[in-house]
Amino acid sequence: MSIFLTVVPVSKAVAAVKSLARTTGDDRVPLEHAGGRVLSEDIRADGDIPGFDRSVVDGFAVRASDTTGAGEAIPSILRSRGRVEMGKADEVQLQTGECIYVPTGGVLPKGADAVVMVENSEEVGDEILIKKPVAHGENVLMHNEDFARGDLVLARGRRLFAQDIGMLAAVGCSTVPVFTIPVIGIISTGNELVPVTEVPAAGKVRDSNSFMAGAFVQEHGCTPRYYGIVRDDRGAMRETLNLAVAECDAVLISGGSSKDDRDMTAALIGELGEVMIHGIAIAPGKPTIIGSCSGKPVIGLPGHPASAFIVLIAIVRHLLDGMTGTAAPVQKTARARLTRNVPSTRGREDYVRVQLENGAATPLFGKSGLLNTLVQSNGVIRIPAESEGIEEGELVEVWLW
Amino acid sequence: MSIFLTVVPVSKAVAAVKSLARTTGDDRVPLEHAGGRVLSEDIRADGDIPGFDRSVVDGFAVRASDTTGAGEAIPSILRSRGRVEMGKADEVQLQTGECIYVPTGGVLPKGADAVVMVENSEEVGDEILIKKPVAHGENVLMHNEDFARGDLVLARGRRLFAQDIGMLAAVGCSTVPVFTIPVIGIISTGNELVPVTEVPAAGKVRDSNSFMAGAFVQEHGCTPRYYGIVRDDRGAMRETLNLAVAECDAVLISGGSSKDDRDMTAALIGELGEVMIHGIAIAPGKPTIIGSCSGKPVIGLPGHPASAFIVLIAIVRHLLDGMTGTAAPVQKTARARLTRNVPSTRGREDYVRVQLENGAATPLFGKSGLLNTLVQSNGVIRIPAESEGIEEGELVEVWLW
Repeated sequence: MSIFLTVVPVSKAVAAVKSLARTTGDDRVPLEHAGGRVLSEDIRADGDIPGFDRSVVDGFAVRASDTTGAGEAIPSILRSRGRVEMGKADEVQLQTGECIYVPTGGVLPKGADAVVMVENSEEVGDEILIKKPVAHGENVLMHNEDFARGDLVLARGRRLFAQDIGMLAAVGCSTVPVFTIPVIGIISTGNELVPVTEVPAAGKVRDSNSFMAGAFVQEHGCTPRYYGIVRDDRGAMRETLNLAVAECDAVLISGGSSKDDRDMTAALIGELGEVMIHGIAIAPGKPTIIGSCSGKPVIGLPGHPASAFIVLIAIVRHLLDGMTGTAAPVQKTARARLTRNVPSTRGREDYVRVQLENGAATPLFGKSGLLNTLVQSNGVIRIPAESEGIEEGELVEVWLW
Repeated sequence: MSIFLTVVPVSKAVAAVKSLARTTGDDRVPLEHAGGRVLSEDIRADGDIPGFDRSVVDGFAVRASDTTGAGEAIPSILRSRGRVEMGKADEVQLQTGECIYVPTGGVLPKGADAVVMVENSEEVGDEILIKKPVAHGENVLMHNEDFARGDLVLARGRRLFAQDIGMLAAVGCSTVPVFTIPVIGIISTGNELVPVTEVPAAGKVRDSNSFMAGAFVQEHGCTPRYYGIVRDDRGAMRETLNLAVAECDAVLISGGSSKDDRDMTAALIGELGEVMIHGIAIAPGKPTIIGSCSGKPVIGLPGHPASAFIVLIAIVRHLLDGMTGTAAPVQKTARARLTRNVPSTRGREDYVRVQLENGAATPLFGKSGLLNTLVQSNGVIRIPAESEGIEEGELVEVWLW
């Protein structure tokens, strides 16, 4: 193999992983367990929400026209018709000059079109003094105002957060149609690696990337399955990759960082399937491999921790979003001003870790073998391949982690 | 009870929940299960990282001074000493005029102080032509450069994300000291509420807030425990609250929205413990109750969905962060420009849902009883109590969800 990689643009690498990404099935889970899952079907309102005109305050349901000109000095005087019981639809038909007490959430009786807050009223025997006028519809949630029966409330591909779970409850979705959770196999290679439980001898380092990748996979709605450290032995590696491809929906090979390791990984993927891309115009993260075995995505991550992390964020994320069925990107971003010049090499996308504080992003420069810039940063900025850098003071978009 | 609540500022409510928040114990979990958990101890490097001078490229380890002036036309010619095996500390002592091949991640032999990338070299028999000079330390990760033995790598109170998990692996933390997961009881009250599985009759609505609160609790590292809908019957409510307080670390009462419901909730908390706050100067979310029973926090959430959600974000979040031991806030924010004027009432904090797109925040005005503004927004802006509003074009901080 050549010592030079034939690198492709990031957009091509992203397109490649997207083309490989398939959801793994669908399922139904109880609403209590649907948080963080992704909808596999559109959800529509099964009825009108609310199903009736609803007071949003504690107060007196009135005809708004009866309160015109009401004030502290000269209140409107309305005859009380008693109170609407919570959770009950009252048969009362409100006439001009009348009012009825309605608790927050209670049904507005027929004839009423607004509610006067109890704070703006005074009870005098059977009569209620209204001290502030209300407009038609004031303090009322109208029938249908939130959603009408049949309205799309949440679309397929939505990753479900707390507010969505509330929404699903409101439309009676007690078991939720979701995509199944993809299982991602994680294999570590590299003769320099020792397990986390060992104290590294001279020349050795602990295998940290595979656990980082596993946690990342989990944060993106997948289940990691660890295959441990495989020695740089082609037979052992082939056996493990075959097993992982059979047992999982995709495989990440957390690479040894040397060219030998990378070459073996690429050769093996080629032998058992197809290598689509070997080398991406991204820094850090160039020696990334994208391929497939038995139609399942197999990604070779670079060996340096920061490189591996950037590739997870910039490339693998799209694979996982595709496999989990997530339609809208989960990546949160913030705008900030750069506190220093950041030079970049034209022709590759540079990802620079930054510390974000009060709208200012300070780049943390550091070799891609370092972990400290990763744990000390809280996001990354992307410098496009066409750019030679970004100047101090410019507005940048920070991908938050 | 008075019809007027005695409201306190948001800062006071936050201080109150913080004063009630206690972690619930500590535990040790395998590294594979530590993602999303919170460290209960400081983690220090158990050795130097890296433990040796390490090449970050595939290339030739050299004495940098031997490459001075090297170029394509007139390369430096160095004698090859063979290659350093991956994962092994070589006994070679490099002399002036010599070089040795080192794979990425390999140990730099004694005497070498830089690495020439293989792309900038050419092998000619036993000799290596070096075509580009390197500086001292170039392409090398120095011994200790990431962390030195004893350095603090991650502090107690850190919520663990993928990069942190990689860091823990690197320092040999195979079982991770974490705080235990608090259990939060969730009780629903309100005569208008029916279970999610029912079709609401006239005047009824489905109980959506308790599931929203449960999912929120989960997103913030706690386990929800649901006690279902309790009828507005003081005896039943007392029994359920007692049970929840006994079984959980804190209790959220997802309130009926009427004054009667709120009063009963407050009275019961007062009977079984203490009501510290009843009413917060926040909109939406005013009728919130903060108290404790048997030393455990008990929060009465407002009944309107948007109000409940804002109170979860603005107040309850601090309670959960305290109980999970999370030191740094998890809330992600972005800066954006407002696309419209947002008026506000002086004396209360207003929380306005916004749609965020390309650095522009568009306010979604809507009654607090609506769910649609919640699921259509992707964040919220806060207008301080001192302010009468924010003008179009002003830069605002958006809390993202």
